[in-house]
Amino acid sequence: MLVPEQILRTFTQNIFLSMGCSDAHAALAADVLLLSDLRGIDSHGVARLTGYVRLWEKKRINATPHITIVHETPTTATVDGDAGLGLVVAPFAMKLAIQKAEQYGSGWVSVRNSNHFGIAGYHALMAVEKDMIGFAMTNASPLVAPTFSNERLLGTNPMCYAFPAGNYPPVIADMATSAAANGKLEIAQRLGKQVPEGWIQDANGNYTTDPHALKNGGSLLPLGSDREHGSHKGFGLSATVDILSAVLSGANYGPWVPPFVAFLEPPTDPVGLGIGHFLGAMRVDGFRPVNEFKAHMDNWISRFKSASTIDPSQKVIIPGEPELESQAERSKNGIPLIDAVVDDLNTLATKFGIAPLAS
Amino acid sequence: MLVPEQILRTFTQNIFLSMGCSDAHAALAADVLLLSDLRGIDSHGVARLTGYVRLWEKKRINATPHITIVHETPTTATVDGDAGLGLVVAPFAMKLAIQKAEQYGSGWVSVRNSNHFGIAGYHALMAVEKDMIGFAMTNASPLVAPTFSNERLLGTNPMCYAFPAGNYPPVIADMATSAAANGKLEIAQRLGKQVPEGWIQDANGNYTTDPHALKNGGSLLPLGSDREHGSHKGFGLSATVDILSAVLSGANYGPWVPPFVAFLEPPTDPVGLGIGHFLGAMRVDGFRPVNEFKAHMDNWISRFKSASTIDPSQKVIIPGEPELESQAERSKNGIPLIDAVVDDLNTLATKFGIAPLAS
Repeated sequence: MLVPEQILRTFTQNIFLSMGCSDAHAALAADVLLLSDLRGIDSHGVARLTGYVRLWEKKRINATPHITIVHETPTTATVDGDAGLGLVVAPFAMKLAIQKAEQYGSGWVSVRNSNHFGIAGYHALMAVEKDMIGFAMTNASPLVAPTFSNERLLGTNPMCYAFPAGNYPPVIADMATSAAANGKLEIAQRLGKQVPEGWIQDANGNYTTDPHALKNGGSLLPLGSDREHGSHKGFGLSATVDILSAVLSGANYGPWVPPFVAFLEPPTDPVGLGIGHFLGAMRVDGFRPVNEFKAHMDNWISRFKSASTIDPSQKVIIPGEPELESQAERSKNGIPLIDAVVDDLNTLATKFGIAPLAS
Repeated sequence: MLVPEQILRTFTQNIFLSMGCSDAHAALAADVLLLSDLRGIDSHGVARLTGYVRLWEKKRINATPHITIVHETPTTATVDGDAGLGLVVAPFAMKLAIQKAEQYGSGWVSVRNSNHFGIAGYHALMAVEKDMIGFAMTNASPLVAPTFSNERLLGTNPMCYAFPAGNYPPVIADMATSAAANGKLEIAQRLGKQVPEGWIQDANGNYTTDPHALKNGGSLLPLGSDREHGSHKGFGLSATVDILSAVLSGANYGPWVPPFVAFLEPPTDPVGLGIGHFLGAMRVDGFRPVNEFKAHMDNWISRFKSASTIDPSQKVIIPGEPELESQAERSKNGIPLIDAVVDDLNTLATKFGIAPLAS
């Protein structure tokens, strides 16, 4: 089904309102999910709405959080999300980082007691809109094994760096620190397809191409896939995300991160509160005049776009470019939803007594 | 040859003094190179001394730089290294970042007009010693092709994140953003060995295991090796390093980065000054009390060290652990130098009329 953006936005907002979110929070949370769908990152958009509702039903998400700053200096802070939706907690924290950057050049906020924050790119882009460089990371439910291990100790822990440009759109490097994001695995599972070697290992630590191995004690592999190809670097990046997001803020880290799915219970021996994020903003003009920076960004982008390529039909892709193309196309033509997602959403609609997505 | 640390340190210092460096700069530059050798990163230690000298002879390194702050806010700055040794310019910038962090919680310095800065870990550790989190990155001579390209447009662009711990040593994730660092390739070249698939491609963009392919128009591959295994993420990380280090500071970026080797001339159409670095420091107590953070770091480390492993004889390695073991061992027993390096160093000794490394 192809759903116009505005219809899906209103529907999503209504679900959040039905959970008891304030108008402002419902609009913001819907905005984060919609941007993901618009940008073609289907795994992080409205397809997750049912997941958020189930966690709220289990009282693991608080629809009316009192988000507070628990510690700060002029340019750093720790925020407690009061078990709220990461979709509203992370923008609160990023706004704070931006305010600090406006005053002092940069701002950095570590967040505890939060939940899944959607796509990292949403939060980093908030800084870019102010001619700042944006950083966003989050830890996540343990699915990834460190190099040499067969134990799931890390999430797919994404990091995002976003840079404003001039005539070109911003450069946005937004990536899971695992070889493959869990969303790609879910797609393979749904289609009954095998996955490439180097994405996952089975419970014994052997490479497997079976996307269901994860359900049977297997684990995702860090970016780099094996030691020889630098999986220890993927592990190092993932560890960095975990430490900045959770050890620094007082959230749960490593294997203690509570699962996003409601059918798995959180560990009974937590080491912190909820999951953690880390957000940052730096003013470009804290380093050089904005127009100079943007002119050189354009030159950087243009040089990489015109790089010689192995296959003449496949140009070099600037980080963030495919997502922006998707956003332009889907804003115009609507957002494609697979039947399973439509069914899930309409089950929610029935539950809350709101109008279903019509077909 | 096994050379005691102090002897190699004095020798190295004397070389820098012979180039005309001040006492303080010679001691600092030697300290950076020695830490690399002590930590087992032989490719970035005294083995590079001849390279620095050759660039100085070509007047591409200034032994008596006037390092200046050209732009700043309370927590950000751009530093011009006046074509000095990166080995002294980067510590200047990191000191500035630390001062800003002491006053405002965090400090971030982008550097232009510099040269190779040794190991990123040295600079990041300066912050760790002050109970801060340290960041260090640098761009470098183009050797790496972005995903889909066969053109060398990026350096191995390392990023380093360093975190203080309590009873355990600090966690230091210090990594090239390519699948393999150039140093590993040089080792294979020297030994006449093939390298694994996924490290390099030939001039046409085909995978090759020939470590000499780089000299014949080939290129290194980003971390992830190919698109399917996330090489676009390695490219995104490398792009991030390039932008923070050079587009932000006014240094050369991408294919314009001047080569570290003296026999290759810098591009005749520079887009900035020298190479660029990016350094940062955040006070741990800007987020939570230091003792709390360190206790949780210890818990994090201890949990990952005790992870179940695929091969019982191969434990999970905490980022920074092998380097620290090497440092303990080599501080005590001396630094092993291969004959080629000893010969190079003694050629320098002859050139400058100082005592050779005796055997």
